[in-house]
Amino acid sequence: MSLKDNIHALFAPKTVAVIGASSAPGKVGHTVVANMQEAGYPGTLIPVNPKADVILGLPVTKNIDDLPEGLDMAVIVVPVAAVLPAMEALIKRKVRSVIIITAGFKEVGKEGYVLEQRLIELCTEHEIAMVGPNCLGLISTQDHNNASFAAGYPAEGSIAFFSQSGALCTAILDWALGENIGFSKFVSLGNKAVINEANMLEYLRTDPNTSVILGYIENVEHGADFIEQAAKVTREKPVIMIKSGTTAAGAKAASSHTGAIAGSDQAYSAAFRKTGVIRAADMATLFDLAQAFSTQPLPEGPGLCIVTNSGGPGILAADATEKSSLNMARLSNSTIDRLKEFLPPYASLYNPVDLIGDAPAERYRKTLEVVVEDPQVHSILVLLTPTASAEIMETAEAIIDVAKTTKKPIFVNYMGGMRTRPGQKRLTEAGIPCSIYPEPLIASIETMYTYYLWRQTPAQEYPVVKRNRQKARLVINDARSKGATEIVEFQAQEVLRAYNLPTPNTALARSSDEAVAAAEKIGFPVVLKIASPQISHKSDVGGVKVNLSDAEAVRNAFFDITARAQRMRPEAYIAGCLVQEMAPKGCKEIIIGFKRDDQFGPLLMFGLGGIYVEILKDIAFRLAPLGRDDAKGIIREIKSYMLLKGVRGEQPVNFQAIEDILITMSELALDFPEILEAEFNPVLVNSEKAVVADVRITLSA
Amino acid sequence: MSLKDNIHALFAPKTVAVIGASSAPGKVGHTVVANMQEAGYPGTLIPVNPKADVILGLPVTKNIDDLPEGLDMAVIVVPVAAVLPAMEALIKRKVRSVIIITAGFKEVGKEGYVLEQRLIELCTEHEIAMVGPNCLGLISTQDHNNASFAAGYPAEGSIAFFSQSGALCTAILDWALGENIGFSKFVSLGNKAVINEANMLEYLRTDPNTSVILGYIENVEHGADFIEQAAKVTREKPVIMIKSGTTAAGAKAASSHTGAIAGSDQAYSAAFRKTGVIRAADMATLFDLAQAFSTQPLPEGPGLCIVTNSGGPGILAADATEKSSLNMARLSNSTIDRLKEFLPPYASLYNPVDLIGDAPAERYRKTLEVVVEDPQVHSILVLLTPTASAEIMETAEAIIDVAKTTKKPIFVNYMGGMRTRPGQKRLTEAGIPCSIYPEPLIASIETMYTYYLWRQTPAQEYPVVKRNRQKARLVINDARSKGATEIVEFQAQEVLRAYNLPTPNTALARSSDEAVAAAEKIGFPVVLKIASPQISHKSDVGGVKVNLSDAEAVRNAFFDITARAQRMRPEAYIAGCLVQEMAPKGCKEIIIGFKRDDQFGPLLMFGLGGIYVEILKDIAFRLAPLGRDDAKGIIREIKSYMLLKGVRGEQPVNFQAIEDILITMSELALDFPEILEAEFNPVLVNSEKAVVADVRITLSA
Repeated sequence: MSLKDNIHALFAPKTVAVIGASSAPGKVGHTVVANMQEAGYPGTLIPVNPKADVILGLPVTKNIDDLPEGLDMAVIVVPVAAVLPAMEALIKRKVRSVIIITAGFKEVGKEGYVLEQRLIELCTEHEIAMVGPNCLGLISTQDHNNASFAAGYPAEGSIAFFSQSGALCTAILDWALGENIGFSKFVSLGNKAVINEANMLEYLRTDPNTSVILGYIENVEHGADFIEQAAKVTREKPVIMIKSGTTAAGAKAASSHTGAIAGSDQAYSAAFRKTGVIRAADMATLFDLAQAFSTQPLPEGPGLCIVTNSGGPGILAADATEKSSLNMARLSNSTIDRLKEFLPPYASLYNPVDLIGDAPAERYRKTLEVVVEDPQVHSILVLLTPTASAEIMETAEAIIDVAKTTKKPIFVNYMGGMRTRPGQKRLTEAGIPCSIYPEPLIASIETMYTYYLWRQTPAQEYPVVKRNRQKARLVINDARSKGATEIVEFQAQEVLRAYNLPTPNTALARSSDEAVAAAEKIGFPVVLKIASPQISHKSDVGGVKVNLSDAEAVRNAFFDITARAQRMRPEAYIAGCLVQEMAPKGCKEIIIGFKRDDQFGPLLMFGLGGIYVEILKDIAFRLAPLGRDDAKGIIREIKSYMLLKGVRGEQPVNFQAIEDILITMSELALDFPEILEAEFNPVLVNSEKAVVADVRITLSA
Repeated sequence: MSLKDNIHALFAPKTVAVIGASSAPGKVGHTVVANMQEAGYPGTLIPVNPKADVILGLPVTKNIDDLPEGLDMAVIVVPVAAVLPAMEALIKRKVRSVIIITAGFKEVGKEGYVLEQRLIELCTEHEIAMVGPNCLGLISTQDHNNASFAAGYPAEGSIAFFSQSGALCTAILDWALGENIGFSKFVSLGNKAVINEANMLEYLRTDPNTSVILGYIENVEHGADFIEQAAKVTREKPVIMIKSGTTAAGAKAASSHTGAIAGSDQAYSAAFRKTGVIRAADMATLFDLAQAFSTQPLPEGPGLCIVTNSGGPGILAADATEKSSLNMARLSNSTIDRLKEFLPPYASLYNPVDLIGDAPAERYRKTLEVVVEDPQVHSILVLLTPTASAEIMETAEAIIDVAKTTKKPIFVNYMGGMRTRPGQKRLTEAGIPCSIYPEPLIASIETMYTYYLWRQTPAQEYPVVKRNRQKARLVINDARSKGATEIVEFQAQEVLRAYNLPTPNTALARSSDEAVAAAEKIGFPVVLKIASPQISHKSDVGGVKVNLSDAEAVRNAFFDITARAQRMRPEAYIAGCLVQEMAPKGCKEIIIGFKRDDQFGPLLMFGLGGIYVEILKDIAFRLAPLGRDDAKGIIREIKSYMLLKGVRGEQPVNFQAIEDILITMSELALDFPEILEAEFNPVLVNSEKAVVADVRITLSA
């Protein structure tokens, strides 16, 4: 049995042992047994306790060694000191899966960390699917399995939820019970020692009971696994995650919470974008999206139609629609003609379709029947304010009826409270999201449409980059053999050339004579730059002079640059100067770089040079590898993209040349894990070509 | 009696006549009488109907002429054709205030518009406080006055609400009933023919029953009144408004709704900012803020302390806090020492204070008692997830008890649903905002703190600008007398000099000889610009040449510019060229301009020249007049502000010089309503000074 098979045993075990079962109500070991019974668990449930005979009517096994062999699952609730011996005994019984509820491991310090490592070794060796430690347990409603000490049990449904925080499980469970929202699985991952979010995504992808996956994470420890599984599952089911610890204060709280160290937030955003995971900004959004995705079909276009009985709320909703990536559907003439037949004269036939304050349920029904058939309408928002004549329940029934006849998503805003509540309840129970505010509903439709587009876009292909890896390897090895953590520009250019990246014509000159000779060979005007392995910020020491147009200028510049560098950085070895061709006129400066994220690997960065990156922070990020679409996307994402397209009659820059550099850098980053950071700054680009004018490569020590 | 006195009669009338009262249940004229009775209206209520004798037990007056003289209020519900005659008859009875519920006026087209104008004339002449037409009526709970056909009556409370949309009144009323939120006044303003939002703000400022003012507006027609009243009231009470029609689609819906034409959204934002009005982005925020402001004291600092029984939610709340303008309060050592005395060992003593999952109510109580006393703590957010041992009701009581002892605001996040609901209800009823999500609560605290800062900031003073208004008047009159809608640069500079605005040394040259002579007088290098009243975009016709460093260059430029202008714009009168001093080196280009908003008057604009304004849209706005703080604020608001402060060791620009230009432009705009738009572009600024290098002034026709 592989780990993957054994995960299934966690959710649908045939035999479950509770190690540390108790007959004392209030104890976790009692609650777990009671929860299993109350869930109607159909398999064999075995309480294990050396001192009891019967617990909750079940015969007790005194000793783990007496359990049947090949046990599907064990829930461990014994004190922390007894966990490892219990685990070892269970392994002898060939247990397939384990939930360790007991706390006191990694989260409490070094001693606990060592204990947890030992558990991981055992589970890995025996391919045991272990959830926890330090968790609440798990629930699988369709399997009638409640292996948790949670204070409640949700209705069956199609939403799965996993969480690094047990408290969030508790909160969401209570929310689900309050709103009568059904769930398929509920998993408290705790310290994620063995089973983590990637395992969950892999398992839930093929779980027939799950159509929407929710997750709460504070950190991801195995970035590559996460990306592999997330990218697969989002092609089939929506994955909505809330990631906390996004700010310094949040990350501090996270560290003291489960000993997790939050990765950089940009890397997480990039990972979610790369894999199509939907990131919920807050708890309200998580709940809203869970309901929307689990009950409504995806909108197959941006056109939203609003049907309302009142003007003001219609305007608010139209405002929110226009601020989103949706648009107000333009109704066809035939739709308008059909509406004219039955709507009163003061009604507005255009979107928002205003049925006026006295609209009875039948007017809603007829209108909805017409607008759902308009091909420009891809989703519908029904608005109702509780006017004196509003038929709140009858309108709900009309909406439910029309929803049954269409594959377009319908959302309802009953704007009110006391009088509207029964209608809201009826709609929600019938699987139609209903809120007292229009804005969150429109946000949900927008997210569903974005996800629809993701599903429509074919999976990206990664172009094969021609490169001479061996040649680059030689340069990097040479630098490392000398103990360098940075590759000097001249050598770095060799790496670039090995990857067919465009570099300016450059020569290293160790004397002013050599500089003049090189300049004559390259052709005036030229640039001179200080060449020293110790000086990476060349401009700071006055180490760059541009536009040198004759031999004398080159000679003077050489003296000037080297003298100044020696004076300012007396410890630096000055190899001489680089002589470089001048960039053609009309070039724009861009910056392309990457840094290696601990969890997710190379994170590429793109922005316009100078103040745009440094002051305006106008930067976009993507994780390697980059496909053509990623490269196009990262360029278009920055606000100053318009400057590259050309303003005031300028030609656009050669975008393909930039994309090629981005794609190639991502390959370079993946080929050499020893490169910690690299930056091409500036890359000079015009309508013809792009050239990497300067480069820094930083190596791991 | 003035209009202002008569407004009071709307809310606290001693005698009310219902014109069009009806004995038929379901009719508006019946509902209004019934609503008054059910509200326990203590004054004299007189149904008026020519055909009835008794309505709802009240004796009916057949004819308006038979009503007592000096009637406080009349509610008109008769058909539209009968409204004007009713009004005229009521005027004979010296009515003080009127609510016209009847629709069919401005909102239905020209005929209705004319009728409404006639009503306005009558009310103005007789100083009658008229609400409507086309409205739901109004409610004043403390006066037991329900002069509306609303389907419900709120509890007494301290929140006042006025709305241009009757539907929103209905919705908010139903929300108030559902959440048991008390209100002081509820006013449906309808078409706002006489009583508008400015009147309401003025009245509610001194209403002792109102502590928080909410408003929904689609447009403001009397901008100056609004600004005057809003600026006054926000010094005493918070005003929270939702403004719809912010996008093109929303504005379109608004126009077809009540015939209102939405002003530019920037002008509304500027008006709210100028007056300290809080703009709610959506309905949920409006509701949240209403509860927060009406129940909690203002936080007197940014420090928020989070007290929680679970880590994950604590992190989410800490994240949201750090993203806001609040911060996580750093607890003092003495606070931490006091917490140590009773908190269990695994509890986190730092903010978020984590009481751990088994926290009973007493642990919350003791912790809150300690943290409210910490001077670094200005507001508190209590988090609870429904763990098995959570004492939901007892914790609510503990929070309520501590809240009674402190002047610091306390907000509660009971994260859950089914089990937490009774606790949430108890807290809400006790006047402590309680939500199932942390983020909206933190947003409310942030808004309250922003409002606290507004209240602390002394009202701005407007500096007196020295100017020769008469001199500017002559130039402007001269241009208008010639039928010009634009003042040519040379004349516009005279206007600027009359306002002591810094202009470059400039001479008009009609020939190349004159140009050379002028250049020699000004000093080389100089700029030449085409001088023609018909050519305002000089660069488009190649009409500007800079850096002309000798006589020959000036002569050639003169020929070149004038010849090209004649060729490209054969219809234009070419007066010659302006000869202008060159800007000093190292100047940055900024743009300062204004356009006159229909509702709010001159709207000033500030941004960096070139791509920053045109491509990146990095612009800030303020309404005239500008004080010193406004001028500082508009400059700091743009994202590229850092560039003016100086990057890479540059000197900062002379900010005071920019502020002076902004303040002076605002005075110029107020002095001359005939100036529609003006733009100083570019203003050149360095660390020494700022100069208006080019100017366009557009006049009304």
